[in-house]
Amino acid sequence: MNTITATFLIRCPDRKGILAAITNFFYKSGLNILICQQYTDVTRNQYYMRLKLDLNGLPCARQELEREFNEFAKQYEAKWSVHYSDYIPRVAVMVSKASHCLYDILVKQREGVLKCEIPLIIGNHPDLEYTADQFRIPFFCLPVTKETKQEQEKKVSELLAIHHIDLTVLARYMQILSPEFISKYKNKIINIHHAFLPAFQGSKPYQRAFERGVKMIGATAHYVTEDLDEGPIIEQDVVRVSHESGPTELARIGSDVETIVLSRAVKAHLESRIIEHENRTVVFSGASGM
Amino acid sequence: MNTITATFLIRCPDRKGILAAITNFFYKSGLNILICQQYTDVTRNQYYMRLKLDLNGLPCARQELEREFNEFAKQYEAKWSVHYSDYIPRVAVMVSKASHCLYDILVKQREGVLKCEIPLIIGNHPDLEYTADQFRIPFFCLPVTKETKQEQEKKVSELLAIHHIDLTVLARYMQILSPEFISKYKNKIINIHHAFLPAFQGSKPYQRAFERGVKMIGATAHYVTEDLDEGPIIEQDVVRVSHESGPTELARIGSDVETIVLSRAVKAHLESRIIEHENRTVVFSGASGM
Amino acid sequence: MNTITATFLIRCPDRKGILAAITNFFYKSGLNILICQQYTDVTRNQYYMRLKLDLNGLPCARQELEREFNEFAKQYEAKWSVHYSDYIPRVAVMVSKASHCLYDILVKQREGVLKCEIPLIIGNHPDLEYTADQFRIPFFCLPVTKETKQEQEKKVSELLAIHHIDLTVLARYMQILSPEFISKYKNKIINIHHAFLPAFQGSKPYQRAFERGVKMIGATAHYVTEDLDEGPIIEQDVVRVSHESGPTELARIGSDVETIVLSRAVKAHLESRIIEHENRTVVFSGASGM
Amino acid sequence: MNTITATFLIRCPDRKGILAAITNFFYKSGLNILICQQYTDVTRNQYYMRLKLDLNGLPCARQELEREFNEFAKQYEAKWSVHYSDYIPRVAVMVSKASHCLYDILVKQREGVLKCEIPLIIGNHPDLEYTADQFRIPFFCLPVTKETKQEQEKKVSELLAIHHIDLTVLARYMQILSPEFISKYKNKIINIHHAFLPAFQGSKPYQRAFERGVKMIGATAHYVTEDLDEGPIIEQDVVRVSHESGPTELARIGSDVETIVLSRAVKAHLESRIIEHENRTVVFSGASGM
Repeated sequence: MNTITATFLIRCPDRKGILAAITNFFYKSGLNILICQQYTDVTRNQYYMRLKLDLNGLPCARQELEREFNEFAKQYEAKWSVHYSDYIPRVAVMVSKASHCLYDILVKQREGVLKCEIPLIIGNHPDLEYTADQFRIPFFCLPVTKETKQEQEKKVSELLAIHHIDLTVLARYMQILSPEFISKYKNKIINIHHAFLPAFQGSKPYQRAFERGVKMIGATAHYVTEDLDEGPIIEQDVVRVSHESGPTELARIGSDVETIVLSRAVKAHLESRIIEHENRTVVFSGASGM
Repeated sequence: MNTITATFLIRCPDRKGILAAITNFFYKSGLNILICQQYTDVTRNQYYMRLKLDLNGLPCARQELEREFNEFAKQYEAKWSVHYSDYIPRVAVMVSKASHCLYDILVKQREGVLKCEIPLIIGNHPDLEYTADQFRIPFFCLPVTKETKQEQEKKVSELLAIHHIDLTVLARYMQILSPEFISKYKNKIINIHHAFLPAFQGSKPYQRAFERGVKMIGATAHYVTEDLDEGPIIEQDVVRVSHESGPTELARIGSDVETIVLSRAVKAHLESRIIEHENRTVVFSGASGM
Repeated sequence: MNTITATFLIRCPDRKGILAAITNFFYKSGLNILICQQYTDVTRNQYYMRLKLDLNGLPCARQELEREFNEFAKQYEAKWSVHYSDYIPRVAVMVSKASHCLYDILVKQREGVLKCEIPLIIGNHPDLEYTADQFRIPFFCLPVTKETKQEQEKKVSELLAIHHIDLTVLARYMQILSPEFISKYKNKIINIHHAFLPAFQGSKPYQRAFERGVKMIGATAHYVTEDLDEGPIIEQDVVRVSHESGPTELARIGSDVETIVLSRAVKAHLESRIIEHENRTVVFSGASGM
Repeated sequence: MNTITATFLIRCPDRKGILAAITNFFYKSGLNILICQQYTDVTRNQYYMRLKLDLNGLPCARQELEREFNEFAKQYEAKWSVHYSDYIPRVAVMVSKASHCLYDILVKQREGVLKCEIPLIIGNHPDLEYTADQFRIPFFCLPVTKETKQEQEKKVSELLAIHHIDLTVLARYMQILSPEFISKYKNKIINIHHAFLPAFQGSKPYQRAFERGVKMIGATAHYVTEDLDEGPIIEQDVVRVSHESGPTELARIGSDVETIVLSRAVKAHLESRIIEHENRTVVFSGASGM
């Protein structure tokens, strides 16, 4: 499909007639609605909408469309953003030593499943330079210690800025980022935690899963917030294990789940299917590939 | 929620502006849209919509609303139906000897999970009269042989008519219904097949699953059509098995899946969440309980 | 299969030749080994074994076999128990108001899936007397308040003793039992917790799951210990949910998982497939129905 | 674990005392049994066993051990094989154009999850030479047409022979191999079929899954036999889909399942955990990583 599209993500207090009002706005603009997904959270009286529009036949500049929609949105106290299909998001991947999540992202990017560019990979260890090289992606090794953390994060920030990064993926980057760093990238950093949150927050989840004797292990992808492992959950999955699996084996079994959960979350973000509000996410279905 | 609602199920050829047109129709009728779910099948150029409306403030008779919508729908060549929340569907359950699906339906009806009445149970064996008695539901034992089939189905039809049955559930009713019978109840009979269709159509699926050495077994709920086990699928699920399970054990493990799959399908039907077209179903999400 | 069998559950420090030694012991006793399952926990150097023996041809009294095995076991510092297939375990079910787990246990007992007798049901509310009546099982209503707890538990204990209860199942019995009570029934009380432990320990797990925005919900069956929701886990499972489901809907979706997880755990216990040690369980496969 | 081990896979008619006899054989040989897994197929009266032995303290040559065991096995009409942990199996991967399964195997081999060497990749299209290059593995492009098939397969056979290949993995190699070719490699070729067999045998399974309107799609790894897609199943898994997914999207969703199912099957084979008999597989648990 070569159609250029615009995807609007909208959140506002729920109100009678809101759906008709919004669809009419775009209908009058001459834009065809390709997809319309919505959800009403009755508990919090919030209305969420994802609209994908065919931009063919847009009779004005995009800025004008945005300005008009902004005026319209004010009446409904709506928060909104728009994402154009001809802009390819730029993603940085941060890693430590484990390669499985990184490989999966690189392969899926290469195969066109993840529609993004990956201009750089940052590791706090040199181990995965080999993998970056395989895919011809610049690798920056920025080791970090307690003492150098502030400085290291400053360098990371510079790299993200220089490369115009839209999304940073922590693909088993085993470091805790400082609140100062995180605060600059709200809903722009996705982490994979190797447990089924809120179970086993913090370190060594597989060891603790073994000790607790759980019968399934899982993984959780979430936006990073200042509260460790407390950020809004985007995706989770689990796999069945038995008493036979020790901690090492749990880690191996879990790695496939981590890989899949992280790439699903990144895909949802890249396709503008996520609206975050009050630490919960609305993740619209992407089953149609759109 | 004591609100009385109307649920419209609509299918029509896809067309620009269709969403705005329909939502406007109801907006102008003064009816608040509680839920709007839609799906466009680009392959077949079909548009599907489920709309749930708050009937409070309906300024006219329901018949009038329906008549007006019918006029409106003609322009779009739309097929549609409407279901009111204050009408409780009436369900007949047909069984043979296995009780697990029947129990689950009776319990879920009693608990209010399946919003329906169950005025009768029909068995071709007397075994489950005990279960019907437990729940104080009339049980009709109508044995069937090759010779008496036509006559037996006539009696079944009469019972369904007398009791104003809206939906018949074959809860492991191990008989094949005749095309004549089936043709009278298009999309009004739900069957549970104890295999993951289209694998293991026909008889003895667990035996054949064992012989084929599959590593998962499943169940499929579908509307009954004249082609055995070829009707439109509503719901499926599977469970992992291993080489250790013989045919009997597969049947026991499978029974939990049959139970869950059938009750999910019946629930979707009772909540007017299914649109069937050309042997495929669109099943709108019921996660919100609506 | 009308064979009478004995199932030995054995745990001892791991040692070279242990498997050959045990199998030889029974071979020399003239008993055929139908099933031999084992597991070595290398972390804790523990060896676990489940042996199912055909008792036909036992040339001595059972007591004599047990005495001889006990002598043999001493050399290996083995803890063991034996369960005979002609003894039908007696199970008490404790409930509050929710009926789904109770119904499933009663139906599976009736269908022969759970091989046990259920001589009584105890409720702290009268709601489920109706269900008990449906299955012709005595129902004891023992309400409990903070003040009457000690006395109520005394009555429960008496009922369990009088009815020679082997296993007590808390089928959504929403009360916390006192340490005094629990200490009398080590690994003899199974509880279903409506969350994927260790996530959402304690009360209102579905509400908290909604607030945390998890993408899957689960249930956990465990032996009850003095530490609330900290007992050894027997079985867990989960189901996918989305942002669309509010707390009430999560509870409804979760009820099917609770039901299945609890009955799997009870089945494993009744089939003598569980060995507990240091708050972890070894649950041997029951896929073969044995 | 640096211990060198021998894994025996044994199948024979079931017989009283077989377990004691075998374990005694090895006990007397002075070899410690690390793992003993067994299964009795009562339907076919077959006994299956997997034994993992610590070879430290083997007082004789391996050939002598094998000769003695062979003598012993004759009494029980046992078929058996033995696999030593210090022999690293050599695997060839055959591909067409899709890269996801190939990448996963290469990454897992590199990470040590799949303990094997991969001396060559064969493609009937040149597309994946890039991927082979990334991992520094020789790539042979052997296009095939109806006319050149015989000759092409001869070249493939030569490559497999020259490189001493133990296992050939068809990682979405979209060609049907001739019976002549297959007959030379019984249980030595693993294929991934992109459907939940026996559903959707043959070509275009995702298209047919869409048309049939299934609610889950799956993948099946099996040994290749002369009957297309009829070989013994090693592993299967599924993923939930909805009406929203067209054939292309089904293929994308399915690719993750294909990847995981294939690598699990290859892992089971490489760890000598599979015994095939009469077109069914016994796959012993590998949860302990052994």
